[in-house]
Amino acid sequence: MAHIIDGKAFAAALRERIGAKVADLITRHGLKPGLAVVLVGEDPASQVYVRNKGEQTHAAGMHSVTHRLEASTTQEDLLALVHSLNADPAIHGILVQLPLPAHIDSNAVLAAIDPNKDVDGFHVVNAGRLAVGLPGMVPCTPLGCLMLLKDHLGSLTGKHAVVVGRSNIVGKPMAQLLLQADCTVTIAHSRTADLPALCRTADILVAAVGRPEMVKGDWVKPGAVVIDVGINRVPARDPEAAAAGKTRLVGDVAYDEAAAVAGAITPVPGGVGPMTIAVLLLNTLTAACRSRGLEAELAEFA
Amino acid sequence: MAHIIDGKAFAAALRERIGAKVADLITRHGLKPGLAVVLVGEDPASQVYVRNKGEQTHAAGMHSVTHRLEASTTQEDLLALVHSLNADPAIHGILVQLPLPAHIDSNAVLAAIDPNKDVDGFHVVNAGRLAVGLPGMVPCTPLGCLMLLKDHLGSLTGKHAVVVGRSNIVGKPMAQLLLQADCTVTIAHSRTADLPALCRTADILVAAVGRPEMVKGDWVKPGAVVIDVGINRVPARDPEAAAAGKTRLVGDVAYDEAAAVAGAITPVPGGVGPMTIAVLLLNTLTAACRSRGLEAELAEFA
Ligand SMILES: NC(=O)c1ccc[n+]([C@@H]2O[C@H](COP(=O)([O-])OP(=O)(O)OC[C@H]3O[C@@H](n4cnc5c(N)ncnc54)[C@H](OP(=O)(O)O)[C@@H]3O)[C@@H](O)[C@H]2O)c1
Ligand SMILES: NC(=O)c1ccc[n+]([C@@H]2O[C@H](COP(=O)([O-])OP(=O)(O)OC[C@H]3O[C@@H](n4cnc5c(N)ncnc54)[C@H](OP(=O)(O)O)[C@@H]3O)[C@@H](O)[C@H]2O)c1
Repeated sequence: MAHIIDGKAFAAALRERIGAKVADLITRHGLKPGLAVVLVGEDPASQVYVRNKGEQTHAAGMHSVTHRLEASTTQEDLLALVHSLNADPAIHGILVQLPLPAHIDSNAVLAAIDPNKDVDGFHVVNAGRLAVGLPGMVPCTPLGCLMLLKDHLGSLTGKHAVVVGRSNIVGKPMAQLLLQADCTVTIAHSRTADLPALCRTADILVAAVGRPEMVKGDWVKPGAVVIDVGINRVPARDPEAAAAGKTRLVGDVAYDEAAAVAGAITPVPGGVGPMTIAVLLLNTLTAACRSRGLEAELAEFA
Repeated sequence: MAHIIDGKAFAAALRERIGAKVADLITRHGLKPGLAVVLVGEDPASQVYVRNKGEQTHAAGMHSVTHRLEASTTQEDLLALVHSLNADPAIHGILVQLPLPAHIDSNAVLAAIDPNKDVDGFHVVNAGRLAVGLPGMVPCTPLGCLMLLKDHLGSLTGKHAVVVGRSNIVGKPMAQLLLQADCTVTIAHSRTADLPALCRTADILVAAVGRPEMVKGDWVKPGAVVIDVGINRVPARDPEAAAAGKTRLVGDVAYDEAAAVAGAITPVPGGVGPMTIAVLLLNTLTAACRSRGLEAELAEFA
């Protein structure tokens, strides 16, 4: 049976280390990293995410600000807020929670964020920095996956990584990070021919497709490391509970089958999921240190 | 025997079509695309490249300006020139010939070019646009390779492309373009394990390594399309001529062996090489049309 990669424990330990570093930065440099989260409207899932982000930022000892704006907020007003956060020296990271209401152009809003404060790593300048290998802000979820992989495997050099999915927020930056870590990287997607056979060539298999349990056990090479980014809500196993609308979370990998073959695997929930907010805190810490030329403080998180 | 992909003829035809479009834009829109090439110092190879670029720009009916600066030019003066070209409405494309003298920070100079005029596609903003799928300026050599591939194959959807080499100017943008064209893309490099076996899985094999004739015939899957980006100068075949210092050009692929197996192959010289300047002209045309909202004029070149 595969080793289970405990993302929940890893994320908790990472948040712990971030908290210690924050305390240290405040004492030695008078620098308190600050994260501003902007929520527009009442989307219930977004409200949960934003609350979690605020709580964890606060728990890490950072300055945490949440701006809750009405669903009717104009694009102009939202842009004005972003500009004021760009200019605010107490704020090192800015996150605008997606999705935004339909009357707002999300791309225009994301493009307005100072790339150095873009802790989500979605700005085109940060995509470019990642592509050419310059320091930038890296999207949280793929960076979290990389950290789990390095923790488990040590060096990734020469491993064949197959990334299934090519979105701008997961698949593509994941492929860039694995390439930077000296993997041979294959990126697959809905037009890939014979995906099962391709997946079977992977030493590292990352599934980021958004299709419940699509990756089967016989797609996994024995001993491979499987990273399941998927978060899919499906009906509960128990038919009565399902009929009553109860749901459960599954990944993009058929976990039981895959775990019987893989060398290591991330579960859902408790694998990649908890890493995302922990890396958001790390990105905020990174942005704060860079804003003061304190990159050396980040060495222990590399 | 493989079909020989005639990049020289394709590039000549492309330059012809660009010339016709330029004439048309001048007549119908009073728009004459303009390219400024900046050369610092006396590097002999660079002088040849810059002269060729100037001549071909002129031959296509474009406005062509070459700035030749002394090797002792300061970074400040070079940046001032770039800023004035950024502001010049008659100039739509700016190319600073590399390498620059050692006392100048090339990255700072490239970063100063207006991304919309960055016809080399080396600016981090253009790397980002390519990564996220926004319209931008794409590096000339990989875009030329893509055009040859599409001309030969039609649709690339679902093909497995293996790109050997991961430089910012060839390998990585090549991989992005192939992914956009719906290939399954593998990117390999010096740390790749068992490169020959990996190459044998490729429907499309792109070699951009800078190692003379490294890719052997038995690395090629029968029927695959081989794109050889390499330009390497090696001693002439004839030992006497070689002793006298005569050289010849070879690619990164052992041509004769590979041509015996491949379905199609680009020769060196006469394959990818001639495409680079033709695409530079196309990028200049593209930048000029975009500067006036005339994107529709570019449809025939897509
Ligand atoms: N853990 C976290 O915190 C976190 C964060 C973000 C996302 N996620 C989860 O990760 C998953 C992916 O998210 P995303 O935003 O990247 O999704 P997305 O934007 O929908 O992208 C999905 C990708 O999967 C590919 N795909 C879809 N069906 C496929 C198939 N049958 N075979 C092969 N490839 C297929 C698509 O290919 P095409 O490009 O060809 O359409 C696309 O590239 C989702 O389950 C999401 O909930 C989790
Ligand atoms: N036709 C044209 O107009 C044109 C334009 C540009 C370049 N070129 C030619 O294209 C070639 C590549 O240029 P470049 O600028 O991309 O070169 P580069 O920056 O030197 O990059 C070479 C790449 O090849 C990889 N590599 C080196 N040795 C290897 C090996 N033994 N096995 C596998 N991979 C290996 C390197 O891997 P690592 O990253 O691991 O070191 C690197 O990623 C050169 O021959 C150049 O002259 C032609």
